[in-house]
Amino acid sequence: MADKISPLAPARFPDLPAIAGLEAAIGRAGFYKHERPDLLLMRMPAGTKAAGVFTTNAVGSAPTDWCKQALAAARGNARGLLVNAGCANSFTGPAGDAACKRALTEAGAAVGVEPREMLAASTGVIGVVLDDTKIPPALLQMKLAPVNWPDAAAAIMTTDTFAKGSGASCTIDGVTVNIAGIAKGSGMIAPNMATMLAFVFTDAALSAPILKTLLRHETETSFNSITVDGDRSTNDCVLLFATGQTNVPPIPDAQDERLANFRAALSQVLRDLAIQIVRDGEGATKLVTVNVEGAANDLSAKIIARTICESPLVKTAIAGEDANWGRIVMAIGRADQPMKREMISVRFGDLYAARDGMVSAEYDEAAMSAYMKNAELEITVNVGPGAGRATMHTCDLTKRYVEINGDYRS
Amino acid sequence: MADKISPLAPARFPDLPAIAGLEAAIGRAGFYKHERPDLLLMRMPAGTKAAGVFTTNAVGSAPTDWCKQALAAARGNARGLLVNAGCANSFTGPAGDAACKRALTEAGAAVGVEPREMLAASTGVIGVVLDDTKIPPALLQMKLAPVNWPDAAAAIMTTDTFAKGSGASCTIDGVTVNIAGIAKGSGMIAPNMATMLAFVFTDAALSAPILKTLLRHETETSFNSITVDGDRSTNDCVLLFATGQTNVPPIPDAQDERLANFRAALSQVLRDLAIQIVRDGEGATKLVTVNVEGAANDLSAKIIARTICESPLVKTAIAGEDANWGRIVMAIGRADQPMKREMISVRFGDLYAARDGMVSAEYDEAAMSAYMKNAELEITVNVGPGAGRATMHTCDLTKRYVEINGDYRS
Repeated sequence: MADKISPLAPARFPDLPAIAGLEAAIGRAGFYKHERPDLLLMRMPAGTKAAGVFTTNAVGSAPTDWCKQALAAARGNARGLLVNAGCANSFTGPAGDAACKRALTEAGAAVGVEPREMLAASTGVIGVVLDDTKIPPALLQMKLAPVNWPDAAAAIMTTDTFAKGSGASCTIDGVTVNIAGIAKGSGMIAPNMATMLAFVFTDAALSAPILKTLLRHETETSFNSITVDGDRSTNDCVLLFATGQTNVPPIPDAQDERLANFRAALSQVLRDLAIQIVRDGEGATKLVTVNVEGAANDLSAKIIARTICESPLVKTAIAGEDANWGRIVMAIGRADQPMKREMISVRFGDLYAARDGMVSAEYDEAAMSAYMKNAELEITVNVGPGAGRATMHTCDLTKRYVEINGDYRS
Repeated sequence: MADKISPLAPARFPDLPAIAGLEAAIGRAGFYKHERPDLLLMRMPAGTKAAGVFTTNAVGSAPTDWCKQALAAARGNARGLLVNAGCANSFTGPAGDAACKRALTEAGAAVGVEPREMLAASTGVIGVVLDDTKIPPALLQMKLAPVNWPDAAAAIMTTDTFAKGSGASCTIDGVTVNIAGIAKGSGMIAPNMATMLAFVFTDAALSAPILKTLLRHETETSFNSITVDGDRSTNDCVLLFATGQTNVPPIPDAQDERLANFRAALSQVLRDLAIQIVRDGEGATKLVTVNVEGAANDLSAKIIARTICESPLVKTAIAGEDANWGRIVMAIGRADQPMKREMISVRFGDLYAARDGMVSAEYDEAAMSAYMKNAELEITVNVGPGAGRATMHTCDLTKRYVEINGDYRS
């Protein structure tokens, strides 16, 4: 699966702030034929609160089922996280559930955490039961230490071509707190490598309900606003942990104004991680931001944006650096949303291709072609007189995508 | 755009029955840079009834708008049809509407048909107004004659690699009648080449309401059951004409039992044409039939089938001859339809990959790999205890698709 680093990768892994009380260990269980780190074990201090958002794929997986049930049963208390790459443990029935539980019991015992406060995440091939017998020997070689973020991010990669991290510091009522997160995913694609994971940590003392509300809200404009190919995996999961090592004044609920900075910082971290996933979209050579304006409402705008972002014809045109705006108009039209045909406009950067339901009078093929050569593109469409708007991020569809996904299991 | 003939193409263009009273002329208006027939004009005898089904793409096009309005205004009476390739005349505002009307007026005048009984169909680039000044000079060179079906089918091609036709004869209440149809399309893809058209003719005397009911019903399991890439064009249109030259006893409605043979024959012709379009899917090397069983109802089954058929990961795996059933499970799960996870099975031909929510005990990688080498594949999934079922047809997603669609306008 070795692939060149994505041309859209950031220059370097960012410096992430330390999260007080957080420890990690990296191991090699051997879920891949070749030697590589494929196991990440993290321990959080007592009192850590957690929240998660999980794939809505109806097939799901043993680890996402476990996390949902464990977070509910432990009322958002969590002390440990075990992540493996190479096996998704999805569509594996009761055998998969049992393997997940045994793996967490072993890993929890190694670091003194009860299984019920352990969370799990697995990515890799669907339909194969996790071989948990590989975990105890790996645990013997692993040692908890303050988190080395680049190594932790690398241990959870599958088809990813670069490790993904993002962090921020901010204040809550005058107290400085930190946020650090890692993610994996080459887009939502590769459900075979099923698929997108993110783990975000803060040292702020925040309750589980607050974490849950903030995470759900901020996921909408970050991880739920990216698409590589529309194939939503069985194992997608974003977990947010608050170790509580930095005391902040008690915050009663997520709407509290004292959380404004934190919410903004969290939003920035989640968006940064999400966009890094698009930058690592399989075979991607272009990062594309699609803005929809003038829709009936925000949800309608998002459906239109997603239809544009997932249209194979739009994506292949972008791969070919072709400002093929007719295909964008087609995608708008097939989104089955309210729109005013005679008000449709399509803009690449600042260049209007279409305006008022027709080709734009100022359309300039040479300027447009020059714009399409950029590695990062912004497409803005107006679809009517409404106030609904949305932004989504995607990448192009290249021959390399077909190659990667046609040859994957062989 | 010259491309090799699809490896999935039928061996030859079929022999189609003559449809009494039908005439056609083929011309060269010059909508392409290279010399090729790009204009088809057909004349039907007085008394011909017609019905159409049109794209639900909200952007639509001048010709589809025209046809809908003309068929309603003339109560299903139609005497002429003008089809051009090379320009879709979609998203062209009032200028496009006016050009369409002028083209039909010129063409109608040349063959003695009022514009209000003329129908139009255009395919090609979106956003360019039809240059109708090219039509009168072409008309001067055109001469009506009994229909030469292969030539007529070739004149409406765009990215198609072979001409598509299908015909049948059957009886209505003991009277033999004929059906002949042509289609164009490389799947629903290529909205730029916007896109799928089919014209079907019978000599039977049938009313416009009967034609409409039959066409709508039979389209559901033919043209509405194929997908190449899910990009639904602005210009899709299927027109059914009955010249009425063969008298049949008056049939009061579409439910009449005397239409059973005709309905079966029409269904066969429409399905044949639809599958030929998938066989000509851009870059296609595999024809894939997906059957869904056990769904809550037929509509739900169709949504699941379509999700499988449009999943880039399923399609690229098939291109790679990889029986990657985990991706099919993922696609089932992301269809957001009722299902019982523990009842999911996936079968390639007669080979079970998954059964009862897990990998099948009889899974045999060697047999599976051998099956995947076939040019025509059948995938059958069960998703639960329901009675809902559906069948859809698609093709694989290859590098050639990306190449064709990345380079199109240049």
